[in-house]
Amino acid sequence: MSSFADAHALAPGPVDLTAIDPAATPAYDGKKGDAEAALEELGPELADLQERLYANKDSGRSVLLVLQGMDTSGKGGVLEHTVGLVSPAGVKVTSFKAPTDEERAHDFLWRIEKALAPAGLIGVFDRSHYEDVLIGRVRELAPSEEIERRYGAINEFEQRIADAGTTIVKCMLHISAAEQKERLLARLDDPTKHWKYNPGDIDERARWAAYREAYEIALERTNTEAAPWHVIPSDHKWYRNLAIGHLLLDALRGLDLSWPTADFDVEHEKQRLRDEVPVQ
Amino acid sequence: MSSFADAHALAPGPVDLTAIDPAATPAYDGKKGDAEAALEELGPELADLQERLYANKDSGRSVLLVLQGMDTSGKGGVLEHTVGLVSPAGVKVTSFKAPTDEERAHDFLWRIEKALAPAGLIGVFDRSHYEDVLIGRVRELAPSEEIERRYGAINEFEQRIADAGTTIVKCMLHISAAEQKERLLARLDDPTKHWKYNPGDIDERARWAAYREAYEIALERTNTEAAPWHVIPSDHKWYRNLAIGHLLLDALRGLDLSWPTADFDVEHEKQRLRDEVPVQ
Repeated sequence: MSSFADAHALAPGPVDLTAIDPAATPAYDGKKGDAEAALEELGPELADLQERLYANKDSGRSVLLVLQGMDTSGKGGVLEHTVGLVSPAGVKVTSFKAPTDEERAHDFLWRIEKALAPAGLIGVFDRSHYEDVLIGRVRELAPSEEIERRYGAINEFEQRIADAGTTIVKCMLHISAAEQKERLLARLDDPTKHWKYNPGDIDERARWAAYREAYEIALERTNTEAAPWHVIPSDHKWYRNLAIGHLLLDALRGLDLSWPTADFDVEHEKQRLRDEVPVQ
Repeated sequence: MSSFADAHALAPGPVDLTAIDPAATPAYDGKKGDAEAALEELGPELADLQERLYANKDSGRSVLLVLQGMDTSGKGGVLEHTVGLVSPAGVKVTSFKAPTDEERAHDFLWRIEKALAPAGLIGVFDRSHYEDVLIGRVRELAPSEEIERRYGAINEFEQRIADAGTTIVKCMLHISAAEQKERLLARLDDPTKHWKYNPGDIDERARWAAYREAYEIALERTNTEAAPWHVIPSDHKWYRNLAIGHLLLDALRGLDLSWPTADFDVEHEKQRLRDEVPVQ
């Protein structure tokens, strides 16, 4: 495990997000430019390990990266800069929006199950089933007993897919309210970013403390051995991208996958090619 | 349209692949290193245009890049090096394998329809519905009347999705039999590539002329205005990646998408943020 994993692993028990500085850069003492270069340097190994995972798809292994965080916390940035270091052929990204009527007619995990990446791939959730205990709780979108039920249901679901071969990496992108304000104002100042802005964002922001509490409860109750949470200080985009790059690297290294050995006679195949009737 | 598009557009009428040099580099007079740098230079504009497409998802527009070619022609390389220039959040890649029992129980276009990217995304097909008139024809996997039917069905299908807002970019990755032999031997020489090799590859290779004929027929019969074919000389990987980068860029530029304008009062939103009750 990298020092990044140690730095962001959440201890069991109650979670106090106010005790975690969103502008901190734990396990890293470089600056922005260094971090961007360091992230690029992870690229070749990430790409190699992603290809090994793909090559070993018969092993049933996969990785699931769950990205959760308030608006502007940078889920899209992680996708572009960190996940973008591997071939898009090896990645399945799902961005979860408000559920459709069909999705609402099923248990909240139904659409999640459908979105899981097949073995050999890296699945990425941009938002996830955690919305159902975050906005679900804050906005009282379901009765409180139902919200209660979901924590256990999530743990059982994650345990099952972990047992079936998926390494789960859950990241909470932790930003400060002040940083979010800056980012929202920056979006409003830039006409090429207006499409990302929704007046409802400010309504959600007004519930910042309620969201923090909902995150703290969710983090505490679903921080399992099978699917541990990492809280990533995300006021610095470059730190966030690098830290998640290291967590992804740890997950892929942890699979400890070698290249599959040939199930054919290599020398015989070479001979077949050399001896072939000319092809054109 | 770029000079690359002109260079690779296929004229209407019969197609003779033997007349197209797989080692040519039309519309480009640089060398390998120049081409790799030129491809990287396309990155920022491709990423910007991909984001514009995503931002305009309500417009119903999307792009579909179809990659077809013999084994080792470099479909995976295009995904990694060219498609990899944009955020994986904006791309939906589907790699088509031999159809499953469920897929076989439907018309050949059923699984294709299901794999289409939603509006706002770039869909990429690594192999495609064309397999059903390529290996389908060469291996006689369906009666000849059924193969015949499929060309028209493909044209109607592609016309429909083009009419519905999808810009279709079809690329045939054209390699020589000699280059394929080199690449297969290189795979056999490298234990980290053995997983990509299948002894059946040589059996398919022995049908090179039949595949060429199947390609020529498919290219001729499905080279429509709505979904034109491009034959990309692909013996040089760097040329292939760059040429397809230009075609993708042309397709995205051709959408002529501006950033969506705000459907809210920007100044009012700024004021709301400035006036807010302190959030923490």
